[in-house]
Amino acid sequence: MVVTLKDVAQAANLSVASVSRILTNRGRYSETTAKRVREIAREMGYFKNQSAADLASKKSRAVGVVVPLIHTNFADEIIKGLYEATVASGYELLITYLDDNEAHQTQVFNTLLTRQVGAVFLLSLDIPAWMMAQLTTQSIPIISLTTILNEHISAVTSNEFIVMDTLVDHLVSKGHTNIALIGDTKLTTNISSVRRRNFIESMKQHQLTTENAFFYGNDHSYETGYQSVTEGYDINALPFTAAIATADLVGVGIVNAMNDANKSIPNSLSVVTIDGLQLTEMSRPQLTTIQQNFAEIGRIAMNLFIENSIDQQQQIIYVPTKLIERDSVLDIK
Amino acid sequence: MVVTLKDVAQAANLSVASVSRILTNRGRYSETTAKRVREIAREMGYFKNQSAADLASKKSRAVGVVVPLIHTNFADEIIKGLYEATVASGYELLITYLDDNEAHQTQVFNTLLTRQVGAVFLLSLDIPAWMMAQLTTQSIPIISLTTILNEHISAVTSNEFIVMDTLVDHLVSKGHTNIALIGDTKLTTNISSVRRRNFIESMKQHQLTTENAFFYGNDHSYETGYQSVTEGYDINALPFTAAIATADLVGVGIVNAMNDANKSIPNSLSVVTIDGLQLTEMSRPQLTTIQQNFAEIGRIAMNLFIENSIDQQQQIIYVPTKLIERDSVLDIK
Repeated sequence: MVVTLKDVAQAANLSVASVSRILTNRGRYSETTAKRVREIAREMGYFKNQSAADLASKKSRAVGVVVPLIHTNFADEIIKGLYEATVASGYELLITYLDDNEAHQTQVFNTLLTRQVGAVFLLSLDIPAWMMAQLTTQSIPIISLTTILNEHISAVTSNEFIVMDTLVDHLVSKGHTNIALIGDTKLTTNISSVRRRNFIESMKQHQLTTENAFFYGNDHSYETGYQSVTEGYDINALPFTAAIATADLVGVGIVNAMNDANKSIPNSLSVVTIDGLQLTEMSRPQLTTIQQNFAEIGRIAMNLFIENSIDQQQQIIYVPTKLIERDSVLDIK
Repeated sequence: MVVTLKDVAQAANLSVASVSRILTNRGRYSETTAKRVREIAREMGYFKNQSAADLASKKSRAVGVVVPLIHTNFADEIIKGLYEATVASGYELLITYLDDNEAHQTQVFNTLLTRQVGAVFLLSLDIPAWMMAQLTTQSIPIISLTTILNEHISAVTSNEFIVMDTLVDHLVSKGHTNIALIGDTKLTTNISSVRRRNFIESMKQHQLTTENAFFYGNDHSYETGYQSVTEGYDINALPFTAAIATADLVGVGIVNAMNDANKSIPNSLSVVTIDGLQLTEMSRPQLTTIQQNFAEIGRIAMNLFIENSIDQQQQIIYVPTKLIERDSVLDIK
């Protein structure tokens, strides 16, 4: 026998409307009453048939999050921020993963769109133009996290220029002029080419030039960091005195490669990283880093949607970052 | 105007059934045809109304995955394994997070159950008995990953006794008899108390006793590992010669605390870890570890569901683990 909302309401001696509000976490009610109703619903085996209700009301209480399959650790931090804001509002989070196979991509977006999510959050994704075009015809809010995709999609992100400029400025203030960018420096994706461009621009603003030879790597991996100084350059005669790692893992790779070759950090090379996750505290020496507030990015993005303040007009919200000075930069002034 | 399957079929000059099979990745068709149909569907802005179709056919092509909000890194590895097997079969993965707030837990399971997923995968979850009881009345397959929850729910996991016994045996073979268990050693959750029990049992089988004082910590964190030797014991007179870390992060915490106190690993303390993720290679010294095959756990679990081989009978599938010897154990024989 299927247990209906009416059955639960009768057992709880409340109106169907009240019970509905409680079970969907909408509107006001006392926590004691809510707890009692949830217990009754649970004991009776009631589960609201959300799909049917969605179709009827044309309004879903779920939001979708799309995460790249190969992602860095910060995805977890963003999801925690999204989760917090989501459960607090009675929405539900449906997360899907995305690889770079085109057929799978279609499938993944179908999953979300056809389950009528109220919004789609793209988590540090570089998605193809055709897919973006199709998403934007669906008239559901789309918010990009940690990256600005184009001139239409709203974004919540660190200010990428400030991220890079803070690190360059810090290194220059310690006397460094030959600075390498190591990690994901390829020109084929939006995110990495923006970082590369910002690096060149910041160096220029500091009256410094960048050599092409000072870019190394195509991804944010530990291995790329390790190989940069062991294979990319002569570890006994590095042409730069400082390196900016595009992610924490890259920085740890550089540190380990130097340590394994009996070169000490920061004496033989100064290293700073972008992201500032726990790894930078676990490294020896601990790494100077520009820390992004990922949980806050998630919370702000979700609240933007909940407060219904995403409209056709693009909004870019910058979440402040913080330079954390530790032990991986040598003052050579 | 809503674009229907029929519209796409007409534009592609194919039957509705063929187009349906292609867009849901079911049945056989040439990759050239499939590509053409997907392109046409995309250009026309067609998205299958999955919710409506699900209600009609009572069969969903999605599976749900429930992940604890505070999870260790291995969740990503399992999800990758699940993802691979899922996209290959035309199913879709819907991931939800779970914290330990009871109201949120109800909400999270509602999200999946009411969206009629074909199966629910519980990823290293210790869920309350009432919720488990309710889940099992839903007559959808439930599979627990990395942990055996009770005598009814099927599980794909490493053999937890072998995991612990392999490490104890390795340490004993190197002459260690005073061995600590550090990390999540609390008795209040299923997973941690099983590990604790297995440790005691394995020690007993090696004719060794375990002292209560040799258990430290209530979680799998880096901080717990670090504090164990700095606060839990006198770092200058550790009462044990070897420590088993219940997770890689815990092991790195122990290594860093020892290094920071100018004690070298393995000379002052031997350390081994459970899990064997990349962190164990990034540590200096690199850590001896029992490596779990998380991606394989995900793949096997998903294939179990796809091949429709989960029945009422409980199945426990053990995925082999591997001892990887590195530089963190001293031979004191």
